[in-house]
Amino acid sequence: MENEIEKLTSDDQKILLEVLFNQHYEIEIISSELNDIESGEKSVDKDTYRQLVSLYDRFRQK
Amino acid sequence: MENEIEKLTSDDQKILLEVLFNQHYEIEIISSELNDIESGEKSVDKDTYRQLVSLYDRFRQK
Repeated sequence: MENEIEKLTSDDQKILLEVLFNQHYEIEIISSELNDIESGEKSVDKDTYRQLVSLYDRFRQK
Repeated sequence: MENEIEKLTSDDQKILLEVLFNQHYEIEIISSELNDIESGEKSVDKDTYRQLVSLYDRFRQK
């Protein structure tokens, strides 16, 4: 997946993030990823998992 | 919306983009944004619209 993002210009990356928030999908995609991890379908290192949980909590508190 | 993204570290932005692609939402969010623009619900400048259409076409061709 890393190369998908590398193919994008920084402008493309910025507009994708803006659209993600404009369309209010930020919580949905993080919770889907956390579900995949917690159901064992996907494995990530501890730091990545912690980062995802922290983002999820921050977005929920908005 | 700009400040939402500015509050994120570059690591947070990177992991959000990775999750967006992992969960295959990139086309969905772009098409939702294009729908909002084309239905008149949202207005953006021409360059932004062109950039969104170009991203949409690229993602569709993957």
